[in-house]
This record gives sequence, C-alpha cells and structure tokens, in this order.
Amino acid sequence: MHEPRTIGFIGTGIMGGPMARRLIDAGHDVRVWNRTAAKAAALGAVSAQSPAAAATGAEVVIVMLSSGPVCDELILGERGVLDAMPPDSLLIVMSSIPVETARHQARAASERHIHYLDAPVSGGERGAIDGTLAIMAGGDEATFERALPFLEPLGRPVRIGPAGSGQLAKLVNQLVVASTIATVSEAMLLAERGGADPARVREALLGGFADSTILRAHGQRMIEQDFAPGGPAKWQLKDTRTALSMADSLDLELPVATLVNQLFEDMVTNGDGELDHSALILELRRRNPLPG
Amino acid sequence: MHEPRTIGFIGTGIMGGPMARRLIDAGHDVRVWNRTAAKAAALGAVSAQSPAAAATGAEVVIVMLSSGPVCDELILGERGVLDAMPPDSLLIVMSSIPVETARHQARAASERHIHYLDAPVSGGERGAIDGTLAIMAGGDEATFERALPFLEPLGRPVRIGPAGSGQLAKLVNQLVVASTIATVSEAMLLAERGGADPARVREALLGGFADSTILRAHGQRMIEQDFAPGGPAKWQLKDTRTALSMADSLDLELPVATLVNQLFEDMVTNGDGELDHSALILELRRRNPLPG
Repeated sequence: MHEPRTIGFIGTGIMGGPMARRLIDAGHDVRVWNRTAAKAAALGAVSAQSPAAAATGAEVVIVMLSSGPVCDELILGERGVLDAMPPDSLLIVMSSIPVETARHQARAASERHIHYLDAPVSGGERGAIDGTLAIMAGGDEATFERALPFLEPLGRPVRIGPAGSGQLAKLVNQLVVASTIATVSEAMLLAERGGADPARVREALLGGFADSTILRAHGQRMIEQDFAPGGPAKWQLKDTRTALSMADSLDLELPVATLVNQLFEDMVTNGDGELDHSALILELRRRNPLPG
Repeated sequence: MHEPRTIGFIGTGIMGGPMARRLIDAGHDVRVWNRTAAKAAALGAVSAQSPAAAATGAEVVIVMLSSGPVCDELILGERGVLDAMPPDSLLIVMSSIPVETARHQARAASERHIHYLDAPVSGGERGAIDGTLAIMAGGDEATFERALPFLEPLGRPVRIGPAGSGQLAKLVNQLVVASTIATVSEAMLLAERGGADPARVREALLGGFADSTILRAHGQRMIEQDFAPGGPAKWQLKDTRTALSMADSLDLELPVATLVNQLFEDMVTNGDGELDHSALILELRRRNPLPG
C-alpha cells in the first residue's frame, strides 16, 4: 500500500468507473467528475462540480474520457483541467486520442510546469475491473516513474517512449485487435461452412500458435452470437481510420489493415456499428450468403 | 502412468522426434521408423527397417511425416502401414494432410477393420518437446477415447468431429497463424516507422486484447530478426493455399486470408520461402522502402 495521495479522476464511465474504484480501494483520496453525475456519485467518492474542481489542488489528475475532442477541450479549454492544476503536479491522460493531440497537450502542460503522461489502455471493462489492463505510456522517464503508483493498481504499465508514443502503441494495439477479429471471423466461418462445430475448433486451437485473447474472448462471442458491446464496431472503425491515417502520413502501406478497415466501414454502413466489434463475422456472412 | 503399449511411430523429424521421445518416456514400447535412419536411431528406441515393420503387430501406429503425398503412399501403398497392421488396431495420422485425403484413409482403414483418427497438431518444436501441442482430432468418439492415452503425453487433444475434421481444424489453425503473422508484421512496422521501439510496443501489448501466441513468439523473432525456421514460409504458403482451395470448394470468399496468401506467394517468389514464416515482415518492408 502506498501513502494516500490526492487524485482528480475525470471520466468515470464503463472503463473509468472501475479504474477510479481501484484507486479508491488502494486507499487514495479520489475526487471524481463525470458528465453524468450519477455515475460519479455511485462510486461513493467525493464528487466534484466540474473538471477544474476535481483538478484543483490534486497531486495527480487522471483523464479517462471516451471522446478525444471532449478530452482535449476539458484539458486545454477555459476553466479546464490544466488551468486548475498546481505547478509540478502530474496529468495522466488515459483516453485514446491522436498522437498529435497527445503531443500538443504535453507541450501545453510543459508550459505550465505540469508533468504529462499519455497512457491509453487495452483490456476492456474486465481488465479495468480486475486491474489487469495493458497500459501504454508516453512521457519522460521521471514522469513515468512518478506515475507508477497510480498506474500499477490499474494494470501493467510499460513506457514506450516520449509523449505521444503511448498513443502510437495504442493505435498499433487497435490495428492488431481489428485484424485479429477479422482473422478469427474468417476462421469460425470456414469451420462452420466446412461442417465442423466452431466451438470445438476454437477449443482445439487454444494453446497452439493460433491462440490469442481475441480467439478466447471474441471467438466465444461469435459462437454464442453475443454481440452486445463491449467495444462497439463504430469505435473500432474510428481507431482503424486513425491508425491508417497515421500510416498514410508515414507513407506506409498496410494492406491487411486497409482491407480490415474496409470491412468495418462496410459493417457500419450496413447498420451494425452499435454492435460489438466481434460482430464483424456478420459482415463476412453477408458477403457469403448460404446457397438457396 | 498407463500400462506400456506397443506403438509403431513413423516419422521422427523435427516434430516426430520429440513426440516419440515423450511416448518412450511415458514407458511405452515404441518402434520407430524414419527415412533418415540416423534420426530414428538417435532416439535409442527399436529402429524398424520399414514402415511396415514398425507397424507389424503394433497396437497403435502413429504417423508424423511432414509430406502429405509421402504419408499417403506409406499408409496405403503396397507393403504399406495399413497392410501390416493387425485388425482392430489403431492408426493415428498426426501429419497435416488434406481433409479429403484423411477421409479416404479413414475409409481404407475401415475396410481392413482398423480404427482411424486424424490428429494434426499446432505448437511447433517447442510444443512437441514440452508435450503442450494443440491436437485437433477427427474420428468417432470410441476411437478418440482409445487414442487418448497416446495423445495426452503429447499435448491437449480435442475431438472436433468425424474423420477429416481434425484436418479441417488444422487448416483453420493455419489460416489464423498466417493472418496473425501478417497482422503482427504490420503492427511492428507501424511502430517502427512511427518512431517507437517495436520491442517496447510488443511488451506493452502483452496481456491486452492484442495479445497472441504469434505476438509473443513471432513478434519476438521479428524484433530480433531471427528468421531461422521454425516453420518455413513455403510450408505456410502450402497451408494457406490448401485452406483457400477448401474455402473455394465451399463457395466461401475469405478476403483477409486471400490477401495474406498473396503476401506469402510474393514472399516465396521473392526468394524468402526457406525463412521462417515470421519473415513476412521482410515482404512488407520490401513493399514499403524507406525514402532516400
């Protein structure tokens, strides 16, 4: 147990809620703010009236808002988080935002003598509840070290490099997730059409080279046809678009990612954007109607 | 420990060698045959002069030859394995062969009152040595039960369905492996070109949704540029071709698999077919030369 510290926690939704919970349970003094105040109140922590109020006097502010533009506005805008934070305090942005946005937030923080870390996560609601998130951090080494006591209750933090590189790693993560979902969808479909029980095929593949978190979690969803999100396909599409636009700016052609992005475009166009991203298998079924 | 049984083991190469070793260590009476006799002799087991000699009088014959046509010839040909096996004995074919080949071998076995199981594996040399292979079995339930004492020392057997369905599951497995290698290759390339250390990105992704055996094993190979096979790309290409031809016969279009198969075609055409399949990242680098 670390010494209790004052944390402002902005955004207590599906992911932020259980993350704030873990920091409260670790004994920290957490003041939360959420757009829907009831979600913040449900945590039983001190509820702040505004993001700035949550940030005022806090040693550390953690931001976990789902929307990038909202996140940027609340941090940099008038009466925003940065204006309220004391000098030498620490801002940890765990939302997934563009690499460039993280870099300009880091510069704005630095001008106010505030330390900045971008630290997006992977692992979903389950990982947030269990404190097993993959945490991809960008920022200088000293800032990362200082953030560790606040990150370790949430999962496994790894420093990638300077500010922005946590977001780059997250984009890479999202590309892998999207392409692996497409891969597992095709696999389940081939098993099914070939006359084998996809549940047994999935079971048999576990432990071999084809094993993956996606095969375990999303493969099971495909078998059970359980497409309640989780991670909605429209968010997945936003991520693959951002990743491809990053690749494009680097003059990098990624053929599989480009194709997978198109599959998610088609899925959303066809009206399935609110379903879990594992419902990509429905798009592949649509392309391959059963004869008769 | 089960009661010792007489096993004929045909094919003691990279995979078959350590598998036969585990059966010997489990106390069974194993008679081995290999084309290159020295590999069989190195196991310290009884070396048979021919496949038929290894099979004669054996309660169980296990075949683990790397080539499908050779496997078929040694099983069905004149003075082959089936002709030498006593009635009511058990033939377990662990080679990866086409679904149709497995089905006709099962029919030929049945005509001779021999029980047949196709049981291809995934997990590589490491899995063979450690006895942690994913084993995908096709055959009737009673045959599967009877084969369990011989499969359990080798890994985790799962019965998929009737004869041939183990091979179908293996094709599915190989498609997932190929597409995941392409996915991880693109991920490592995006990290690298985006200015992040791919080793740290890989490390950060472990435990999140992007985690996979391929990220762990083949991602590490890509980082270390260690492309000694392992699984040569030319074998991977053979597998993706077979899987796509199976999909084609089912009127099933698998867009990601089709693209990934083409990437492996290009890789082999460009002379890298003998390298490990993880060297697919070289093909993606070739498509994306660094400026200047």
